[in-house]
Formats: sequence, C-alpha cells, structure tokens
Amino acid sequence: MIEFKPIGIIHSPFKDLHDMPIQPTGAVGVKGSVEVFADFREGLADLDGFSHIILLYLFHRSQGCELTVVPFMDSKPRGLFATRAPKRPNPIGLSVVQLDRVEDGMLHIQNIDILDGTPLLDIKPYVPAFDHPDDIRTGWLEGAGKTVAQKISDDRFK
Amino acid sequence: MIEFKPIGIIHSPFKDLHDMPIQPTGAVGVKGSVEVFADFREGLADLDGFSHIILLYLFHRSQGCELTVVPFMDSKPRGLFATRAPKRPNPIGLSVVQLDRVEDGMLHIQNIDILDGTPLLDIKPYVPAFDHPDDIRTGWLEGAGKTVAQKISDDRFK
Repeated sequence: MIEFKPIGIIHSPFKDLHDMPIQPTGAVGVKGSVEVFADFREGLADLDGFSHIILLYLFHRSQGCELTVVPFMDSKPRGLFATRAPKRPNPIGLSVVQLDRVEDGMLHIQNIDILDGTPLLDIKPYVPAFDHPDDIRTGWLEGAGKTVAQKISDDRFK
Repeated sequence: MIEFKPIGIIHSPFKDLHDMPIQPTGAVGVKGSVEVFADFREGLADLDGFSHIILLYLFHRSQGCELTVVPFMDSKPRGLFATRAPKRPNPIGLSVVQLDRVEDGMLHIQNIDILDGTPLLDIKPYVPAFDHPDDIRTGWLEGAGKTVAQKISDDRFK
C-alpha cells in the first residue's frame, strides 16, 4: 500500500455529484479555486507563468471500483481504463484547468469540472511538448468528444 | 492519509535514474510495456481504440520532497509545482505515451520515459477535447520545451 495525503482543497460551485459538467470542456468559464495548505505554498513559485495546470485529486465521493462502466457519453458498457469514470482501483482524478492567477496560496482557476471540497494531491504545469501528442485516435469516444460540452452528470457513479 | 495500491508494473529499457529521457518527447520510439495485474484486466476493454494513454504511476525511487528544485531544463531554482520533478509531496508521475497494442493484459507502448519496474496507479484514455487546451503559456519553460528531446537526466532527484 502507498500512502498519500491531501496538499490542499479544491473549491468549486458544484456541491453535488448531480448536474455538474463531466469534463473541463463542459465547464468553460466556470470559476473555482485551489487552496494549497501552508506547508506546501513554497512550491507554488513560478507557477503563475503557466496558463494551464494539471490537477490530480481524489475522487473522494466515489466508493468502490467498477471495471466495466457505462460512461456518461455512451450507452454501451466500456472497460474502465478506456473511460474517465471515477470508480477506479485508485480513485485519482485528473483535470486540465486554466490558471488565472496565484494569490496567497490560492490558485484562481477556470473551466473547472471538480466537486467542491475535493482533496488535492498534486499540481503539475501543463506543457504541450510533454502533454500534447500528435496523430490521436480516441476509440469509442470518436465524435463523442465534440459533444461532451453539452453533457452533464447524473448519479450513476455516486 | 489515503491508501493506494499498484495495479500493474511498467517495463522499460531504463534500469537506472541516470541517462534516461526526462519526458516522452525525449523518448520518441523507445518501446516499453505495461503489465496490468490479472485482477484489473477486465478494465482494459475498449482501450485499444485509443492511440495515446495517460499513465499515472509512483515515483518509487524518489525519496522525500523538495518544494524548490533546479529542474533539468533550467539553471535557476523553481517552485516544485511549476516543474515535473519527482520529489513531490505525493510522488505521482504522469506520462502521455503512445499505445501500440493490447495483448493479454500487457499494453505495448512507445515514447516511454519511465523507469523499469515502476508501480502503475492508473490508466486513462488521452482525449484532446479534455486534455488539450488552447492558448497555452508555459512560463519559465517557454523555449525549453523545444529542447527537452535532447536533455537526459542526471542524479539530482535520486
């Protein structure tokens, strides 16, 4: 077993798993913030130069693990690892969000699709040279990616 | 504290922290594999339709945490969260790699920058609509991203 600890808390307008966007592309303009605990704020230096950051966080309201799921964007069962569904063996969420500014250990962010009160695990700078491959295929999601902005969650992963 | 467990092991040609590429863009064509433990293989269904996947893994050879680091690509100290350095409060690594094929619970991948024997925590499909924002700035890395392919690691984060 590996032990991790929260390094902050994510604040957002989404108080419930219902009726929230399922990915940042469905949350354009939605503002939130990341409160980084005092012990870790030294590590935020230089972050304000980046327009986008990768947040890793705990799916803290998700319980158990389902290796086959019906994703929000489909009507067929799919392998869990071919989806971004939260009931994972290690329930780590990943979102790329826009960073507006850093103030006193608080990151002000946009395009947030994360539940209020979510425990933060890590922050990484988004770097296209590392994070943006070319010639991409997206399997069952081909086409679905374009419509994700319109999709909202329901309680299937509660 | 949050407990996570390995769901597989990453195999690569890199047996030591020295002399390995520091990001997948420096590892073009380098082949490796991800062995997913039998208990979790059901979750691999449908993954083969995706050309790229996001691997989350444990920086298992990294000890301790340094909130200010001198990254491989710079000569100045930088805030840890503005870098991808491994000595993080929660030592979770993230790499976007090319998926060539899935066979009997083994993912054959390319462009791998990960140490051999690394414990796997999660696999997510890479979806541009979620993971590729527009209008990106990369702070201190502006320009450095273009040269990362030539950089190799040394022992500073051992």
